[in-house]
Amino acid sequence: MKKVIGLVGSLRKGSIHRTLFNEYLNLSKGHFELIEGEIENLPFYNQDIEPHPAVVTDLSQKILDAEGVIFFSPEYNYSVPGVLKNALDWVSRDPRSPFSNKPATIIGASPGNIGSARMQYHLRQIGVFLNLHFMNRPEVMIGNAFEKIKEGKLIDESTRSFLEKHVESFDKFISSIPK
Amino acid sequence: MKKVIGLVGSLRKGSIHRTLFNEYLNLSKGHFELIEGEIENLPFYNQDIEPHPAVVTDLSQKILDAEGVIFFSPEYNYSVPGVLKNALDWVSRDPRSPFSNKPATIIGASPGNIGSARMQYHLRQIGVFLNLHFMNRPEVMIGNAFEKIKEGKLIDESTRSFLEKHVESFDKFISSIPK
Amino acid sequence: MKKVIGLVGSLRKGSIHRTLFNEYLNLSKGHFELIEGEIENLPFYNQDIEPHPAVVTDLSQKILDAEGVIFFSPEYNYSVPGVLKNALDWVSRDPRSPFSNKPATIIGASPGNIGSARMQYHLRQIGVFLNLHFMNRPEVMIGNAFEKIKEGKLIDESTRSFLEKHVESFDKFISSIPK
Amino acid sequence: MKKVIGLVGSLRKGSIHRTLFNEYLNLSKGHFELIEGEIENLPFYNQDIEPHPAVVTDLSQKILDAEGVIFFSPEYNYSVPGVLKNALDWVSRDPRSPFSNKPATIIGASPGNIGSARMQYHLRQIGVFLNLHFMNRPEVMIGNAFEKIKEGKLIDESTRSFLEKHVESFDKFISSIPK
Repeated sequence: MKKVIGLVGSLRKGSIHRTLFNEYLNLSKGHFELIEGEIENLPFYNQDIEPHPAVVTDLSQKILDAEGVIFFSPEYNYSVPGVLKNALDWVSRDPRSPFSNKPATIIGASPGNIGSARMQYHLRQIGVFLNLHFMNRPEVMIGNAFEKIKEGKLIDESTRSFLEKHVESFDKFISSIPK
Repeated sequence: MKKVIGLVGSLRKGSIHRTLFNEYLNLSKGHFELIEGEIENLPFYNQDIEPHPAVVTDLSQKILDAEGVIFFSPEYNYSVPGVLKNALDWVSRDPRSPFSNKPATIIGASPGNIGSARMQYHLRQIGVFLNLHFMNRPEVMIGNAFEKIKEGKLIDESTRSFLEKHVESFDKFISSIPK
Repeated sequence: MKKVIGLVGSLRKGSIHRTLFNEYLNLSKGHFELIEGEIENLPFYNQDIEPHPAVVTDLSQKILDAEGVIFFSPEYNYSVPGVLKNALDWVSRDPRSPFSNKPATIIGASPGNIGSARMQYHLRQIGVFLNLHFMNRPEVMIGNAFEKIKEGKLIDESTRSFLEKHVESFDKFISSIPK
Repeated sequence: MKKVIGLVGSLRKGSIHRTLFNEYLNLSKGHFELIEGEIENLPFYNQDIEPHPAVVTDLSQKILDAEGVIFFSPEYNYSVPGVLKNALDWVSRDPRSPFSNKPATIIGASPGNIGSARMQYHLRQIGVFLNLHFMNRPEVMIGNAFEKIKEGKLIDESTRSFLEKHVESFDKFISSIPK
């Protein structure tokens, strides 16, 4: 069982990415111990705030303790949600470089066809600086998400089996990255 | 005198982008009435929060009232600071589409050579969704910024005259975009 | 009738983007006189080749003479096809800056869901350097293209009417850009 | 000694990236057997051309035989040179997926400050599709290149020692990627 941390980029209660986190947690049992990193209770990043608030160092510590990172995130305005980027801005300034050398992957969805693709390539570019190792394949871009995810459940079977295969791929990918 | 709104992407007091905002305000007198849009006091964007908080609608109104938008922003982790992106996430959900059809430009700087370039292309992609009209030229990417901006002053004369020309370019650019 | 130049990013005979060019030419009659810029007969860009070959200066001249530019292009490897980029590399070195200040738009399609989105944002970034003015909306990203385009015909009616509206939008957009 | 293939994105004889290839070849002796993949003699990619021309399959075979890939490339128009992208377009269609799972890195330079950064992030996005594993660090973005590279020689000592360290980093990185 690998310890993996998930960051959820949407705050609303009925978020499809919240559902995807919950479903992925269930699907990945036996492979991952998936915990969530809290990003909602952080202040806005401000370099003048030293030392880092406890909510930040707690998040940084959780990321340090994890063997892999999964971003469950929508695309907002063709990019990464501000609330998620803010968490990255804080953690990146922790001198222990919590993200450095961690395997990472992205689970994204959208009501339309694009499936959050634009957000994902921005996040991958950010990952170059953070020294994350993003898995190349499979990419998870779930289009027409409101038909596949309803009332807090993933009801589309082909998406479910796709995610099951993703779990196996990411498990192997984590094993392949030297610590 | 054109009403222009500036959004500053860094919160720290001694921020070089805060200095650039102040200096640009002075340099642009006679051309622009430059006001600042507050982004620090916003909550994190959450679709469940309806109606929008007053701090959000105030910001949206200021943007609606402006003839142009200037982003004064650092690059954080090869992209847009979370705090600035969060403001865009809020304003983009205002049904009046405050950014739509506004002329826009970016003033960015960095201690190294890149001058915030990576942030700027992410912001330009975001602008496609927001229907901003970003000016193509001149691009403002101020490298080695800690040598050019000290103790709250822009001390580099060539950067100063470059910004003076930028004011004229952006003034003409605003005039060229049909309202 | 506005003179508009189209650049087609795929060379194969049965290309869906060749079909889209042909269909757009028909749909836009009354608005545009759409000609094609040849990119297949160019050599690879090489700065040592001076003066520019006649095939290059011919293309550059056609672009100079046009009031607008339309890219009909697939996405290859998540970016712009090499053959199309090579044409841009040549034309960009023409001292007359043929692309500068031209209104531009992109018609892209793909067999999958993404509809060439990744190519389009790369092309928009290239356009900042070329000083193209890309129209923000509507974006044309035609997914599942092999179901909509068959045997050299656009058989999907909703895509056809979408393109008809695109013609009107681009016509107005060209008129809005000062020459 | 690891077999590594270099692709040079500029065709002109006095190219600074040609110089960088030559200098890197010398610097990396003892670590790499660096050969060049020819991209100038390829036709433009055209899906109708089957089977692939011998010049293409030769290049694909060389990439298959290599343990790593190094791109020595300028930035043209804020992106990847067409001639280099065209080579990627061909090789990506080889059913053996020559690039898949290969470690890769980028050596880029420019006369200005940016050092080809914009090209590099486009190339990294292309690499997601090709399933290349790009090394995150160090990034090689050599600014003010015409002062550092003259008459076919790298005359800047700090750049030379930086490249020497890069050789060691990339050697280790190749070893870290499971075959």
